[in-house]
Amino acid sequence: MTALTSIPTVHKDLEADLARRLAVVVERIAGQLTSPIPEVEELCRHVERYRGKMLRPVLALLCSDAIGRERTDVVTREVATVAAVVEMIHLATLVHDDVLDDADTRRGAPTIAKMRSSEVAVILGDFLLSQAYHLCSSLDDQRTALRVGEVTSAVCEGEMLQLVRRGQADLDEETYYTIVERKTAALIAVACELGAKHAGADDETARRMYDFGRDLGVAFQIQDDLLDLVGDEHVVGKTLGKDIEMGKVTLPVLHHLAHCEAGERADLTTLIRAQVPLNGERRTIVGRLHATGSVAYAQKAAADLVERAKSRLMALPDTDARDQLLLMADQVVRRDA
Amino acid sequence: MTALTSIPTVHKDLEADLARRLAVVVERIAGQLTSPIPEVEELCRHVERYRGKMLRPVLALLCSDAIGRERTDVVTREVATVAAVVEMIHLATLVHDDVLDDADTRRGAPTIAKMRSSEVAVILGDFLLSQAYHLCSSLDDQRTALRVGEVTSAVCEGEMLQLVRRGQADLDEETYYTIVERKTAALIAVACELGAKHAGADDETARRMYDFGRDLGVAFQIQDDLLDLVGDEHVVGKTLGKDIEMGKVTLPVLHHLAHCEAGERADLTTLIRAQVPLNGERRTIVGRLHATGSVAYAQKAAADLVERAKSRLMALPDTDARDQLLLMADQVVRRDA
Repeated sequence: MTALTSIPTVHKDLEADLARRLAVVVERIAGQLTSPIPEVEELCRHVERYRGKMLRPVLALLCSDAIGRERTDVVTREVATVAAVVEMIHLATLVHDDVLDDADTRRGAPTIAKMRSSEVAVILGDFLLSQAYHLCSSLDDQRTALRVGEVTSAVCEGEMLQLVRRGQADLDEETYYTIVERKTAALIAVACELGAKHAGADDETARRMYDFGRDLGVAFQIQDDLLDLVGDEHVVGKTLGKDIEMGKVTLPVLHHLAHCEAGERADLTTLIRAQVPLNGERRTIVGRLHATGSVAYAQKAAADLVERAKSRLMALPDTDARDQLLLMADQVVRRDA
Repeated sequence: MTALTSIPTVHKDLEADLARRLAVVVERIAGQLTSPIPEVEELCRHVERYRGKMLRPVLALLCSDAIGRERTDVVTREVATVAAVVEMIHLATLVHDDVLDDADTRRGAPTIAKMRSSEVAVILGDFLLSQAYHLCSSLDDQRTALRVGEVTSAVCEGEMLQLVRRGQADLDEETYYTIVERKTAALIAVACELGAKHAGADDETARRMYDFGRDLGVAFQIQDDLLDLVGDEHVVGKTLGKDIEMGKVTLPVLHHLAHCEAGERADLTTLIRAQVPLNGERRTIVGRLHATGSVAYAQKAAADLVERAKSRLMALPDTDARDQLLLMADQVVRRDA
């Protein structure tokens, strides 16, 4: 389990328990991502290779434990379903993102869009979404399906806003956060909320877990944005500088644009508008971002969000699960891949 | 209401009643297709222009009436929701279809894919799907959401199979029907089934209404395929011959390929593989299709399906709604647009 090899665990028992339950989630996903049409079945098997850190399922499982209630069979089953649903929606967005970003590879495997065509990727993403909703509707409490529908729509809204604002260097911070909260944080947040809810959390606690996940999700995206600029290509495992190439203005860049000299602003604005390969220019840009304190600014924004996220867990009982969530929260801004 | 101007109604009372209830469905869709993000909201308003004959909502409403039970407020509300959900899923598939088919216009309005970009169309389609599921989850009986999820996955499977078989002239009839039953007929069928179900139909009757809708849906697609070949461009309102241009082998074409001479087969196979504009060749092809009886063959297949569909209604009570469904069934193969 990548999730457990890349993030330290508070102790071995928890690690083994999580690994066992994640295996159930993986099984649930595989059981749902299947089709009597061989062409669809084959693509489903390929998509399994996109599974990465399983961040959302891990959070759903840990947030359900962190409530501190007894873990009945029903709770175990429901939380595994919620975790699978959220991960499947995440996989669907990855498949469609690769169409939007014209990406070649995803976690070392060729993207569906490149391996087949963007048309195949569009339909496959729809199939994944549809199967996720189908699985979600198998839960007794349909309020979960309502929440998942709501949040998936928010994810689309965030994606759309980012897409239509591509190439516009005058993005403000408020719009940046609107995009990130919807595009990235909402699904992470709802994984936390629903994990807790299905473990018996009251409304206030479930809301707090959502807020924890949202803060964490925004910090996660800021760290992603930073890695795309200042990361090590070999460690991150993908071509960097893609955000500027795609005309996406991220937090360090928008801070820089507001604080740099007119000449630098004109250069960077032109690059963002042009949406062309950066070639060797990334290092120059990173140097300039450091000079205006823009890298440090974004790092601090992410670190502050992680601290706020952690503070939201303080009202929970002192459990291994909570300690693990605190560890994971720190890892979000410490990771270099 | 286009649905009621293009199809004769059995009498004025029914026409007025249907128009009033369709207005509720339209309102329900508009209420769900909305977003706090202005860019998304604007696209939702554009998509409303794609609304056509409202075939699926009309069928859901009529099938609910045809059960012959009292129409309570709850039934009225639930059936309107089901009708809205199915139409929204249909709209989502239209938006993604335009990406797949690289289409310029849709019901006289520019497609989202052309007006903005295929990327915008991908996300908007996802948003429509997600909002449809959200609305569906508001129904008390979540078996409806399960069925809708199941059927939407089948739609995707049909689309995928058609997509990956594009350009392959050796498509057999079984695969053709597998594609059409999933891509087109399943959603029409489930509109009939769920309309009936929410009006109190027992399982057997609901299944029969599904089968009615499936037969009708397949006939509808065969008629669409025929119109793309032998229709009148001014009446149909779009460029014809697109199926061959997109490498899609339809029923008349696959019959022709199995019955024509080797030379004609080689010509048509080359065209289907090439996926290029037909220019003036459509009329020549149509002449050849007539010569092998392939147009008549497809017309008969559609007419037989309509007869089978109609026979499935015979066990229902004799109501205006049933008469209207019988009329609509005939219209499916009589229409020229």
